[in-house]
Amino acid sequence: MTSLNIALVHHPVVNKRGEVIGSAVTNLDIHDIARTAKTYGVARYFVTTPYRDQQQLVRELLDHWQTGHGATYNPARKEALGIVQLADSLAEVLACLTKQYGKRPLVVATSALMRDNTMSYGELGQKITMGDPVLLLFGTAHGLAQEILQIADVTLAPIRGGTEYNHLSVRSAVSIIIDRLLGS
Amino acid sequence: MTSLNIALVHHPVVNKRGEVIGSAVTNLDIHDIARTAKTYGVARYFVTTPYRDQQQLVRELLDHWQTGHGATYNPARKEALGIVQLADSLAEVLACLTKQYGKRPLVVATSALMRDNTMSYGELGQKITMGDPVLLLFGTAHGLAQEILQIADVTLAPIRGGTEYNHLSVRSAVSIIIDRLLGS
Repeated sequence: MTSLNIALVHHPVVNKRGEVIGSAVTNLDIHDIARTAKTYGVARYFVTTPYRDQQQLVRELLDHWQTGHGATYNPARKEALGIVQLADSLAEVLACLTKQYGKRPLVVATSALMRDNTMSYGELGQKITMGDPVLLLFGTAHGLAQEILQIADVTLAPIRGGTEYNHLSVRSAVSIIIDRLLGS
Repeated sequence: MTSLNIALVHHPVVNKRGEVIGSAVTNLDIHDIARTAKTYGVARYFVTTPYRDQQQLVRELLDHWQTGHGATYNPARKEALGIVQLADSLAEVLACLTKQYGKRPLVVATSALMRDNTMSYGELGQKITMGDPVLLLFGTAHGLAQEILQIADVTLAPIRGGTEYNHLSVRSAVSIIIDRLLGS
């Protein structure tokens, strides 16, 4: 297991007009990202949402695959979802990791746009290799709100694919970024 | 646009017992993979299924986003789905590309397991950079059937994440592989 933790933020994020919103949890975001995270040895995958009904949906999904019919039907899925942890907010995630590691992890935002204070994939990968605790933040909808970007210590350089088109799904972005950081 | 083409194969693939099956088309496989492909300049994304009802579903999805309400609601999605092409079989895809390029493309299979005749990401990336036509095959369910692996000229090395866990979604695998081949 590595010292990399990730969080998928559902509030506060922005919509396509840049307004601050909360997004609904997408089933496949939990499954796909947990499978990628487990493959690369990510320590924990936090799903953050302040909405009680959304939290309940996440709990039901996790229950199904961890102790319900899903656990016997697909043990590999059970294993992947074992690293998923529900949280109210980024503050709760930070408190949890700070307690665990005895210090605040490096908080790294991701964005489809170039931001100030950018860290390269090589540099961040090296920190993880050295065992420094890291929390990598991903935004749903059209990305993390300014409020979250300001909490982050640094931002990863955006993924560019050599074209003008810049609309990866968050599931794809997470996979590519984790592979760039931890893939061999 | 690059000389890389990809195909998502729904038949013949294998189930978890290794039996040859046909799988159902998954909505998000079309969206997510088209978005990644468009981001990296993949020329065409073939969705292959021999089942008429599945082909009809794909047509309805493409119509909605290309000429229906979706096209005005989300022009970026329209653009991504513009590279998607429905095909009956791998044979049809190969005939189409052979006609277009005036020669058979290099056919490259992907697999979660190590196979004979493996090509590295660096070597394949270089061929694409040089403009050699390439068709990269991805399997749904538990992967491409033997019959498809035998049609391929080479197989890409499996993605390993440094753990024993080896269950990426096909959406994640496609994103990681395209980034390894074409990402900067």
